Amino acid sequence: MIKVGVIGATGYAGSELVRLLMSHPQVEIQGLTSQRYIGKNFYEVYANFRQIQDAVCKEEDIEAMADECDVVFMALPHGVAAKKVTKEILEKTKVIDFGADFRLKDPLVYEKWYGLEHGGPSLLTEAVYGLCEINREKIKKARLIANPGCYTTCSILSLLPLVAEGLVDKKTIIVDAKSGVSGAGRGLDTGTLFCECNESIKAYKIAAHRHTPEIEEQLSYAGQEDVVISFTPHLTPMNRGILATCYASLLPNVTRAQVEKAYQKWYGEEYFIRLFPEGVFPETRWVKGSNFVDIGFTIDERTNRIVVIGAIDNLVKGAAGQAVQNMNLLFGLEEQTGLCMPPIFPG
Amino acid sequence: MIKVGVIGATGYAGSELVRLLMSHPQVEIQGLTSQRYIGKNFYEVYANFRQIQDAVCKEEDIEAMADECDVVFMALPHGVAAKKVTKEILEKTKVIDFGADFRLKDPLVYEKWYGLEHGGPSLLTEAVYGLCEINREKIKKARLIANPGCYTTCSILSLLPLVAEGLVDKKTIIVDAKSGVSGAGRGLDTGTLFCECNESIKAYKIAAHRHTPEIEEQLSYAGQEDVVISFTPHLTPMNRGILATCYASLLPNVTRAQVEKAYQKWYGEEYFIRLFPEGVFPETRWVKGSNFVDIGFTIDERTNRIVVIGAIDNLVKGAAGQAVQNMNLLFGLEEQTGLCMPPIFPG
Amino acid sequence: MIKVGVIGATGYAGSELVRLLMSHPQVEIQGLTSQRYIGKNFYEVYANFRQIQDAVCKEEDIEAMADECDVVFMALPHGVAAKKVTKEILEKTKVIDFGADFRLKDPLVYEKWYGLEHGGPSLLTEAVYGLCEINREKIKKARLIANPGCYTTCSILSLLPLVAEGLVDKKTIIVDAKSGVSGAGRGLDTGTLFCECNESIKAYKIAAHRHTPEIEEQLSYAGQEDVVISFTPHLTPMNRGILATCYASLLPNVTRAQVEKAYQKWYGEEYFIRLFPEGVFPETRWVKGSNFVDIGFTIDERTNRIVVIGAIDNLVKGAAGQAVQNMNLLFGLEEQTGLCMPPIFPG
Amino acid sequence: MIKVGVIGATGYAGSELVRLLMSHPQVEIQGLTSQRYIGKNFYEVYANFRQIQDAVCKEEDIEAMADECDVVFMALPHGVAAKKVTKEILEKTKVIDFGADFRLKDPLVYEKWYGLEHGGPSLLTEAVYGLCEINREKIKKARLIANPGCYTTCSILSLLPLVAEGLVDKKTIIVDAKSGVSGAGRGLDTGTLFCECNESIKAYKIAAHRHTPEIEEQLSYAGQEDVVISFTPHLTPMNRGILATCYASLLPNVTRAQVEKAYQKWYGEEYFIRLFPEGVFPETRWVKGSNFVDIGFTIDERTNRIVVIGAIDNLVKGAAGQAVQNMNLLFGLEEQTGLCMPPIFPG
Repeated sequence: MIKVGVIGATGYAGSELVRLLMSHPQVEIQGLTSQRYIGKNFYEVYANFRQIQDAVCKEEDIEAMADECDVVFMALPHGVAAKKVTKEILEKTKVIDFGADFRLKDPLVYEKWYGLEHGGPSLLTEAVYGLCEINREKIKKARLIANPGCYTTCSILSLLPLVAEGLVDKKTIIVDAKSGVSGAGRGLDTGTLFCECNESIKAYKIAAHRHTPEIEEQLSYAGQEDVVISFTPHLTPMNRGILATCYASLLPNVTRAQVEKAYQKWYGEEYFIRLFPEGVFPETRWVKGSNFVDIGFTIDERTNRIVVIGAIDNLVKGAAGQAVQNMNLLFGLEEQTGLCMPPIFPG
Repeated sequence: MIKVGVIGATGYAGSELVRLLMSHPQVEIQGLTSQRYIGKNFYEVYANFRQIQDAVCKEEDIEAMADECDVVFMALPHGVAAKKVTKEILEKTKVIDFGADFRLKDPLVYEKWYGLEHGGPSLLTEAVYGLCEINREKIKKARLIANPGCYTTCSILSLLPLVAEGLVDKKTIIVDAKSGVSGAGRGLDTGTLFCECNESIKAYKIAAHRHTPEIEEQLSYAGQEDVVISFTPHLTPMNRGILATCYASLLPNVTRAQVEKAYQKWYGEEYFIRLFPEGVFPETRWVKGSNFVDIGFTIDERTNRIVVIGAIDNLVKGAAGQAVQNMNLLFGLEEQTGLCMPPIFPG
Repeated sequence: MIKVGVIGATGYAGSELVRLLMSHPQVEIQGLTSQRYIGKNFYEVYANFRQIQDAVCKEEDIEAMADECDVVFMALPHGVAAKKVTKEILEKTKVIDFGADFRLKDPLVYEKWYGLEHGGPSLLTEAVYGLCEINREKIKKARLIANPGCYTTCSILSLLPLVAEGLVDKKTIIVDAKSGVSGAGRGLDTGTLFCECNESIKAYKIAAHRHTPEIEEQLSYAGQEDVVISFTPHLTPMNRGILATCYASLLPNVTRAQVEKAYQKWYGEEYFIRLFPEGVFPETRWVKGSNFVDIGFTIDERTNRIVVIGAIDNLVKGAAGQAVQNMNLLFGLEEQTGLCMPPIFPG
Repeated sequence: MIKVGVIGATGYAGSELVRLLMSHPQVEIQGLTSQRYIGKNFYEVYANFRQIQDAVCKEEDIEAMADECDVVFMALPHGVAAKKVTKEILEKTKVIDFGADFRLKDPLVYEKWYGLEHGGPSLLTEAVYGLCEINREKIKKARLIANPGCYTTCSILSLLPLVAEGLVDKKTIIVDAKSGVSGAGRGLDTGTLFCECNESIKAYKIAAHRHTPEIEEQLSYAGQEDVVISFTPHLTPMNRGILATCYASLLPNVTRAQVEKAYQKWYGEEYFIRLFPEGVFPETRWVKGSNFVDIGFTIDERTNRIVVIGAIDNLVKGAAGQAVQNMNLLFGLEEQTGLCMPPIFPG
């Protein structure tokens, strides 16, 4: 059994991780920590866990957890993990970080977009970007995994074959993304009150969202040149789900067959990626509660643009599910272990 | 492996059953039937099953299915199953019926509330009402299970210990129940269009809902005298969930301790029933996607009434989950096999 | 033109009041105050008012407002108004208070349910309970109006004819009420975050909600004896609306005709009360954005109970609309002035 | 008083029109027609109108209505109005058509996108595209108004100043639009059932939606050259609202000041268009129930793209409200007559 600890278990992503870990046949939860709910039973914070998970939420102590656990998941606000994770910790345990601190290789980019100095740049080289379908082999050997963001997972996977295979003009990429409200977390904010989100949709952080450089960095690796994109996130009145509507101009003479071949090449064998046939498109309801990434596309011959639609559950493939998938890779398990439940509908 | 067939797989309850059966370690799905989608792949009807369940929806043929399957689930409109299920069928397979046809022992009561003649009254004696926590031993030996209704499961389980232990005045029982819209099924009806349900709550079939006699019959068995109740269902703007707010006058001098003892006696060992402590109450969000029944109560000393709150997921414990629980009992499996996933939140 | 001031304009009820006042042909808004948004333009707090209402939110100064205004609306947390409103203020202006401070005649009852000492009991005798359809004549002559609560408006109006005409057993009254989330206000609370309310329904403050004594007091006046009820509020995943499902045992031999006559007698001439014919029932969607109270009932002959359904928009008839209606009465205007817009659907 | 008739009053747009007309001080409704509800009182179809509008829904008879009415509104499926409206009708009454039949000047374009032959091409020259802010003068003199589509109103108004003033590369325009479900109408369709839309977002008719040529035609007039765009509509889980997120590459050296000037030039005096200042963006909640068009933009210096956000209520400015605005123009009234209610929030 893999002994795991969860730091920051009482946010939405942390709680979803606990749910998934409890269905995982090879995991034993050693400890859960929380900032706001220290001393409470986990099921008092999330009553869905009544009679299922009664661990007491502890104060964070990464040193102790590193001693006890084979892997530590960290679901903390950005800026914190970079200070907590050290070489010493990594000699004792593996770390899968849900935050942004180890996702961008260049600390200056981090500082520009996050507005604070990076707290632990020395580990940036070692950290592996945990987008499983792309970095599988590196992940297997890693000690420190930067679990990708929710918007980024959906956006990168939707676009990567096009960029990697050189099918689109890389200067024309636009991602118009829509997220459920759980992506904003459980913190208190007027903007996420029920009456403020319900029955409305809005764009926010237009051309300024922090997932932008993360998408660009990964697409740049794939395309082997700097990719700069437009990214617009939207808050959508639903609990879960991300839909990424991606636009790019096809290079001259690129055909639908070539595009299909590119997606097949990259994802044809991927369990968690479901490629939709012509004329059928992903919707967030079809992935709810699951680790699937649904991808479909159409080519608009009038404009010679391709429109790619990607859909994930932001809390699963966009956070906790991908973290479990990363754990499975780290420990040599079948990648889908504990992640095989069909999506729930209507959910 | 248990070979199962699902008749009426493309309604919401049928589809949820397929989801649960696919996570069940001892089940092999032999066939799925549909009225509206014959010839389509199941995942074309419910795209959450893409790359998971690609069976072709067949036309209903209960004879053939009885030959091939150890158990046949029927999720059909009322009135149909009574005509299809025969002694010959039951000699070949077990049947778990989601509909109302075999729930009421008295065909005259059925005819009064459903407005049509009963199509197969000869099997009513044999049929077992599949409320697992109450009829477990009978279920184990049955061939024909009448899977309880969603409102009824929640209402009966919430009230039964009070009635069985003689703690309340049986003439004072009122159930004010609230259901998500999936309870109304996937049929086309102006009343279940998004814009008609969203942002509104309504009572319907007040004092006239067909689940009323079903609740009354079971409570009458428990209380050993005829129980007549008021039952008011409400349509609530959410996909899933039933909340039953139940009222009854306590008999003189009944204490909270006695009530707690009654619930402990009946449910203390039940895996799927979670009794809430004083001051904490069930909410539908805490059971979503799971087979749990959450129950809590308060005693209003000013009126000497007890208010019991019950919550279930209408598609799981209120339909497909309880059906799987019944199947587990029929085949001698652990009752919670395939039903152990924690509820999903936020879901 | 009536000069009005609004204290506490940036809560949901205050903001709705501003919306209604701006459509009122005889009103001139003199000032808006806020606790959290002092110095901001009102449209910066509620962007629906952009280019419509650009008043700057001021700090509360009831003295100054009393000098300038013919009427002051107060939408403040309970406990505050009782301290602010004085005889001196009432000599200068009329006050319509949205809070609970002046609703209950007995300060001891207030202290029991609200858990704090009443800050201004000397004005309780003078204050008039502003349930317009019931207290119209008193309201016309009042200086201080206690605008009723949302649940209470809906519950009292639904039940009053039955109690006043002696048609029901007053010991058997149960109100099972369902409210949209705006009733909980705009304050920061984990419980009103989108993901906590959406896709779930819950009962709360069971047998302990503060609107209980308010309903009881008014029904006791109507019934000329003490009425004690059971009241259970529920939080429903929608922005607006209250549905009250009310139960009571009919006295022997009471007929549907008698009940209809009672409702006609009390409400037959009321513009804002719409009595539904047999077999049709109120739903919250039909009153959204309006000051209507929809009422329908059925008699359950099996139990001899009557079930009355009432529906209002909690922010209009349950708060701001009724306040405007009170203002119209105070100033001798037609009661429906500024309140005649049809409900918005789908809304 | 203007005598008006409404053909197709029982769809969502028709019903919203009735709501607005009833608040209009200069209108008298002569008749309402319906296909599905002939002989019913209007309030039986839409109970929000109980005691407000009790007209009986009649069978459509445009000849008779033309005799009685000063203006006839038609809210019919496409293809029908083109056959019904004739020169003879237009000699007797003015017509404001909600459908698409008279929006596109070229019947071949109509036939291509709508897949049917145009039923009355001879009136296409005369028909005026009723986008009030753009075609005001023509509208005033028209007899036949093609009321614009919902997506199109929002998209065209959001982009027009950029195109008209030559600030963007017209080949780079992308509109990613999100609509509430009421835009799909009240017809029976599995896709608009509550459980199918709720908790999910999807793109549909990608690169193939019929509003595309309408947007292109109007932008082409403004830009004085053929404009071809990418348009992707999305179904969003809310009743009302359209948000258009529009992308275009700025031409070299275009500054924010120039863009602001263009919007001011076109819309600075427009009552119904609210231009948002830098850093604040439209959200659909701020326009609900109103005729406003909210527009804001940002310039992404990294990509030199402008992102314009437009928001409307699809049933008001996107249908019934604009129709009333057109009527006001036709009859020489103040343009905002009957349309001045502030948006409703939370709505």
